[in-house]
Amino acid sequence: MTILESIRGPRDLKALSEAELGDLSHEIREFLVHAVARTGGHLGPNLGVVELSIALHRVFESPVDRIVWDTGHQSYVHKLLTGRQDFSKLRGKGGLSGYPSREESEHDIVENSHASTALGWADGLAKARQVQGEKGHVVAVIGDGALTGGMAWEALNNIAAAKDRPLIIVVNDNERSYAPTIGGLANHLATLRTTDSYEKVLAWGKDVLLRTPLVGNTIYESLHGAKKGFKDAFAPQGMFEDLGLKYVGPIDGHDIGAVESALRRAKRFHGPVLVHCLTEKGRGYEPALAHEEDHFHTVGVMDPLTCEPLAPSNGPSWTSVFGDEIVRIGEEREDVVAITAAMLHPVGLGKFAERFPDRVWDVGIAEQHAAVSAAGLATGGLHPVVAVYATFLNRAFDQLLMDVALHRCGVTFVLDRAGVTGADGPSHNGMWDMSILQVVPGLRIAAPRDADQLRAQLREAVAVDDAPTLVRFPKESVGPSIPAIDRVGGLDVLHRDAGEPDVLLVAVGVMAPVCLQAAELLQARGINCTVVDPRWVKPVDPALPPLAAQHRLAAVVEDNSRSAGVGAAVALALSDADVDVPVRRFGIPEQFLAHAKRGELLADIGLTPVEIAGRISASLALKEAEDSLVAGSERGDDGSQDGRAVVPAKGKPVPVKGKAVSVKEKAE
Amino acid sequence: MTILESIRGPRDLKALSEAELGDLSHEIREFLVHAVARTGGHLGPNLGVVELSIALHRVFESPVDRIVWDTGHQSYVHKLLTGRQDFSKLRGKGGLSGYPSREESEHDIVENSHASTALGWADGLAKARQVQGEKGHVVAVIGDGALTGGMAWEALNNIAAAKDRPLIIVVNDNERSYAPTIGGLANHLATLRTTDSYEKVLAWGKDVLLRTPLVGNTIYESLHGAKKGFKDAFAPQGMFEDLGLKYVGPIDGHDIGAVESALRRAKRFHGPVLVHCLTEKGRGYEPALAHEEDHFHTVGVMDPLTCEPLAPSNGPSWTSVFGDEIVRIGEEREDVVAITAAMLHPVGLGKFAERFPDRVWDVGIAEQHAAVSAAGLATGGLHPVVAVYATFLNRAFDQLLMDVALHRCGVTFVLDRAGVTGADGPSHNGMWDMSILQVVPGLRIAAPRDADQLRAQLREAVAVDDAPTLVRFPKESVGPSIPAIDRVGGLDVLHRDAGEPDVLLVAVGVMAPVCLQAAELLQARGINCTVVDPRWVKPVDPALPPLAAQHRLAAVVEDNSRSAGVGAAVALALSDADVDVPVRRFGIPEQFLAHAKRGELLADIGLTPVEIAGRISASLALKEAEDSLVAGSERGDDGSQDGRAVVPAKGKPVPVKGKAVSVKEKAE
Repeated sequence: MTILESIRGPRDLKALSEAELGDLSHEIREFLVHAVARTGGHLGPNLGVVELSIALHRVFESPVDRIVWDTGHQSYVHKLLTGRQDFSKLRGKGGLSGYPSREESEHDIVENSHASTALGWADGLAKARQVQGEKGHVVAVIGDGALTGGMAWEALNNIAAAKDRPLIIVVNDNERSYAPTIGGLANHLATLRTTDSYEKVLAWGKDVLLRTPLVGNTIYESLHGAKKGFKDAFAPQGMFEDLGLKYVGPIDGHDIGAVESALRRAKRFHGPVLVHCLTEKGRGYEPALAHEEDHFHTVGVMDPLTCEPLAPSNGPSWTSVFGDEIVRIGEEREDVVAITAAMLHPVGLGKFAERFPDRVWDVGIAEQHAAVSAAGLATGGLHPVVAVYATFLNRAFDQLLMDVALHRCGVTFVLDRAGVTGADGPSHNGMWDMSILQVVPGLRIAAPRDADQLRAQLREAVAVDDAPTLVRFPKESVGPSIPAIDRVGGLDVLHRDAGEPDVLLVAVGVMAPVCLQAAELLQARGINCTVVDPRWVKPVDPALPPLAAQHRLAAVVEDNSRSAGVGAAVALALSDADVDVPVRRFGIPEQFLAHAKRGELLADIGLTPVEIAGRISASLALKEAEDSLVAGSERGDDGSQDGRAVVPAKGKPVPVKGKAVSVKEKAE
Repeated sequence: MTILESIRGPRDLKALSEAELGDLSHEIREFLVHAVARTGGHLGPNLGVVELSIALHRVFESPVDRIVWDTGHQSYVHKLLTGRQDFSKLRGKGGLSGYPSREESEHDIVENSHASTALGWADGLAKARQVQGEKGHVVAVIGDGALTGGMAWEALNNIAAAKDRPLIIVVNDNERSYAPTIGGLANHLATLRTTDSYEKVLAWGKDVLLRTPLVGNTIYESLHGAKKGFKDAFAPQGMFEDLGLKYVGPIDGHDIGAVESALRRAKRFHGPVLVHCLTEKGRGYEPALAHEEDHFHTVGVMDPLTCEPLAPSNGPSWTSVFGDEIVRIGEEREDVVAITAAMLHPVGLGKFAERFPDRVWDVGIAEQHAAVSAAGLATGGLHPVVAVYATFLNRAFDQLLMDVALHRCGVTFVLDRAGVTGADGPSHNGMWDMSILQVVPGLRIAAPRDADQLRAQLREAVAVDDAPTLVRFPKESVGPSIPAIDRVGGLDVLHRDAGEPDVLLVAVGVMAPVCLQAAELLQARGINCTVVDPRWVKPVDPALPPLAAQHRLAAVVEDNSRSAGVGAAVALALSDADVDVPVRRFGIPEQFLAHAKRGELLADIGLTPVEIAGRISASLALKEAEDSLVAGSERGDDGSQDGRAVVPAKGKPVPVKGKAVSVKEKAE
């Protein structure tokens, strides 16, 4: 049995000797490299917090003491130390979550994997303890990258003000988020990192000055009076103490003893205190350390020795199609600039940054600033492209609405990882954008169905200079091209059955293949479909209501929340045009999706051709039955041969055909 | 002609003598007090920035130099100095906006009146200048209160990092937002305020130390080496210099000469610089200075001498009904606590804070932190009530979704100023909440129609401990009680015409009286209505689809965006139940509303009984005509007497009656 295997919970850590702790750290790194290589996941960040996690669980008594992990992808070691060592299905259906999960363990608190939240959570937890007179420590672990987010600032401002409310902030300073951390704060942390600890200098200063008669004494006294100033003179404590936080550090985050001693000091301090730990992302794994871009922030399934990917590549990703096209656009238009929120490479801006280093800005983990500074850039005469993951745009809703849209700024938002993403769990799915953005006046939203469309629509988007535009596409590889067979208004017609049309399928973006397959299934049941890709889903194309009016039923299929999404917008457009063709809506139900593969999740929520075709044909059958009843009642009978037979059992739709009139004729 | 009247634009300021500038300041204050007393508006903040605004326009060349005002309610003086002196219709239809407005002047840049945006805008504008090699200064004016917002931090972090990009931040430090500014930052600013300027101390230090042989010299040298530390020892420059910003201050913001000299120094500095100006909110107007609560942050129409309100009061406000009830709830439940984002009194928490000072937190202008710390409080065993203006909740969308809802926290959000608010212009209308929050799993939304309902629903809301709840109500006075005549499921039936029902009117919250009047108008046209108040608009009550199915048409009327709002949710619920009764949606169209009175705006956008009744009866008439055509085609003729006569001209609906069947009988 290894030492790691002997750890059933945090208490088992306490008895270990220094040597055993060293062995444990080594075992954990071995475990992480091999386990994460098998499933894919966050590797670099976890290799960096091995000693920190051990020290935290030795000094504090979780779950009575509350340890809050910011951006929980750094919680793998914490999981190993709190009874979760089966990583075989990490991030997969039924396996361990890649983030803290309350369902998994009483040691987990925050499941949200958006950054910069831990300090706010900790502030709330500490306030609750104070109000209720409860004992126990509250500890927030936050990276230097996450400190660039506005939420961290709002929390620091609150935490620092309450001198009588103990709260321990552990800054896990690895100088990076995905990429190196940017900004004034990063520079300040660098100053703190390179400074000898205050205590050493204090001893020296007292020694030197007090040995000097008269003048030395006077100066020591006067300096000591301005205590903060004196400390800063030799060892800047910096902005944290300026705000009112006790600062402890810098500490070598890979020295368990040093971290423990700092944490114990922090524990004894009855107020807000910040412990500054220096760690190395990817620590102990050479390939990660050698990886300049992000120190193996996340890895796919790979060989742990060669680091060669073991999962087959399915061709170019949506990200790379965007990344190549934006460079071409940048060549043609000098006014096109780009913004990333600490994710230059993941959002596909790497090539753009290489080609136009002066026209791209990493603003930190700061989506609000990405959007509002884009409004400034646009007002200043440029056309900014803000590239973020779809789920993170939620952070910039107010700025997109109030700064970009209200001022009619030509800003293009490019949302990667839109729709169901899967393995990263509930907070990484990009399933809200097409719903919450419906209210934004003037905003145009494109959902390209293939690489050609992405390139074309990206160009259409950046051509708009008096309103915001948005282009959204999913994670993973881009599929084959899907040609249009016709154009009606702004709608691409992808498929049209011969004969009288029954169902209009509105396929949003990557739902096109799903809709085409659903149409095939429906055709086999004698139901004629038209499949259109609206290309721009907001505003609803004026050609859509009249086209829908030619059908008996319309269905909208989107990789986005069913609530308030494209389906809602289409239903509104039809209602406004007095086109009362029934609209059925297919999308993501109003729920948080647990981690699993995208395909598994789509199947679970019924976003499959079979489910869609089934629901549509059942709906049509029900309508026919109702119409027969009405037609019957007009004639004075009950409109059916045998009462209820024409009403289909749910899930067992009866084949139907033609428009209401012809069905009524059949019924007669 | 007064000096003020002679100022046609910023250039006219440059020729004025010191004495004339003093007179001008005096004239401006006189003007502001009398003008704002006549119309209502932001008074205290503008009285505080008279000299600052004059100095800014004397030192910089707007609009070539760009002056960005944060939370633009402090821009009245700027308006007076840039050619806008007709304040007679301030904040009224066709009058001056209460905020900067690009339509009004080339000197205005940011119209959004949500706080903490100016630094981000300025960062974008400065980057645009740098990329394009343009000359000219970018100046952001931001209050100490707005610095507590996360956006300010994100921007500071970016601005401070670019040593070669000039940008001037003027901190207008009046120690308040509405109320005194809170947090570690406020404490830090207080330290800076009470410090003699560094320059004075530097001169003294050099003098004293260098006169001391040997030791003094050594110490001076060593201190000078650690320059920042030396400065801090005597005159803390604080966190701004820690981040990398040049700090100039503190400056007496009411001394035009001192402010000008500081701004000129800042202008010469080729990098980011912060000028710290101390001002007094309400300066020069005794009643404002004496007003402890908010120094006359905003005033209604009043007598400028006695400060007595001149507009008639229409009884208790929604705010006060909430404010009283939450105190009663607090008496009964010790676990109920409250959070405000720098607006304790405006959101009605004043009495609660008086009664339970340890159970309420002002978190600063930090809606994100309000929501995320509420999640922490709830997880810690309390039930937080987060009271904010509806429009400001947009800032906390991600936190409500990802921190509160994902973790099933029992947090109650209370949204004041929901719906059309009017005078404060496009960014203060609370017209987005019921749309963007439709996607939030588990969230329950209440829209009370009267004071009784507000009290009852607030209690129902805080009783939910495993999911977020939200109660929204408008600005202004609460109207008379509206009794329910029946209950169907969770729906209050407010009205039901005798006879076969035609139209189901779903009245959301304060739209109840409008719907009742619309029903009256429809009844006069022979159309029978049922009016229901769903009380909880999310989730849609299961009783709604079957009830709608008994009608020929359903209409949803809401004081919220038509896009993706309650109407969309009702339409989805009906569609999911295969109830294909047409749904007409009435609400705020997808546009930004210019400032005007609430009533004027509701009329402009057609949210009136007449417009609603007209649209509904037109819709019904059109349906009847279509049905006749279908009935006719079934019989083989064209279904009408004279071709088109039964299709009503838009806006001139024909009176119709009864269900489709009877109309068809009539047509025959």
